[in-house]
Amino acid sequence: MTLTLHLASGTIAMCVHAALEETGLAHDLAWVDFGAGAQTQAPYLAVNPKGRVPALVIDGTVVTEAPALMDWIAATTGQLMPGDPLAAARVREMMGYLSSTVHVNHAHKMRGHRWTDDAGAQAALRAKVTANMTDCAEYLESRLQGDFVEAELSVADLYLWNVTRWMPGDGVAMDDFPRLRAHHDRIAARPAVGRVTTLHEGR
Amino acid sequence: MTLTLHLASGTIAMCVHAALEETGLAHDLAWVDFGAGAQTQAPYLAVNPKGRVPALVIDGTVVTEAPALMDWIAATTGQLMPGDPLAAARVREMMGYLSSTVHVNHAHKMRGHRWTDDAGAQAALRAKVTANMTDCAEYLESRLQGDFVEAELSVADLYLWNVTRWMPGDGVAMDDFPRLRAHHDRIAARPAVGRVTTLHEGR
Repeated sequence: MTLTLHLASGTIAMCVHAALEETGLAHDLAWVDFGAGAQTQAPYLAVNPKGRVPALVIDGTVVTEAPALMDWIAATTGQLMPGDPLAAARVREMMGYLSSTVHVNHAHKMRGHRWTDDAGAQAALRAKVTANMTDCAEYLESRLQGDFVEAELSVADLYLWNVTRWMPGDGVAMDDFPRLRAHHDRIAARPAVGRVTTLHEGR
Repeated sequence: MTLTLHLASGTIAMCVHAALEETGLAHDLAWVDFGAGAQTQAPYLAVNPKGRVPALVIDGTVVTEAPALMDWIAATTGQLMPGDPLAAARVREMMGYLSSTVHVNHAHKMRGHRWTDDAGAQAALRAKVTANMTDCAEYLESRLQGDFVEAELSVADLYLWNVTRWMPGDGVAMDDFPRLRAHHDRIAARPAVGRVTTLHEGR
């Protein structure tokens, strides 16, 4: 099997990268230069017409959307997903919330142009990001009851770590969320995750 | 097993409802009155603190997020999900795109208050909904190559049917997207889906 992960530094592709490292799946990296707008240009749009990362090329087939890729990595390796169907549903519930609510709230800071061309309205969107991300942190704090999202480390923990990386920059007072911060630090301390962080922060 | 689906008419809970009907899983329905704002009030927040639908209560455990529930229904019944891991990844890719991009674009029409308290900015968000949903329809039209998202009917088809129901109301010219419209009509014509539609439209 050959795998190429198209990714950009610090984006949600980071958790897919971390899942590949955690599970030991051999892969190549293809960095997309967001600073140069490469995600909006023809070479990358030929990979992913949606102009987003991550995209994982699996033996020549392109698959996108982070939750789908996390699930595929788990299924392929037999790691990072509970065997119990209800626990697996709770892992996917977390990824669904992070992708369709928390990531979306975060995106209104820098990517408001997706939803309005009006500069004043984009500023109005930025003004609510801290409040919305703080609301999300409150929910996540209540949801975390143990060391991990479910009983054991899963793809949801890597996804959550990726999203909580953004929270201080979004104005969330992490001191108010001790379980969430401890979770973040717990995942960040894993050797595989540390290797990924070093690669992203070095760019 | 006892299942209770908390849902509201015409929302994304509709595809979960349809998946329960398609697979024959016995279930009770608990309608949440969005017109009266019941999703923001204590009784429902005790079920789902995120104040959204769907929520499925599985033998007393609440699980939320439509893609997670679709996956659970597929796993529990052995239906509506390809056995091939790569095809399954493509099914989940579609659900990820629909939930975190298309549904989000749609939500900016009626739920702009999530992202800004400014009435003028909310109007600016509404102004871009048709363009964004049309862009999504273009991608979906290019993605659909056969009768279904993958080779056979899957949860992704029910999810896509649910979201394309919203497109005419969002100003998408469906005549421009014949494969997408044919897909919608194909799913809508299924007896199980028709039963669900009748229940939702009767409210």
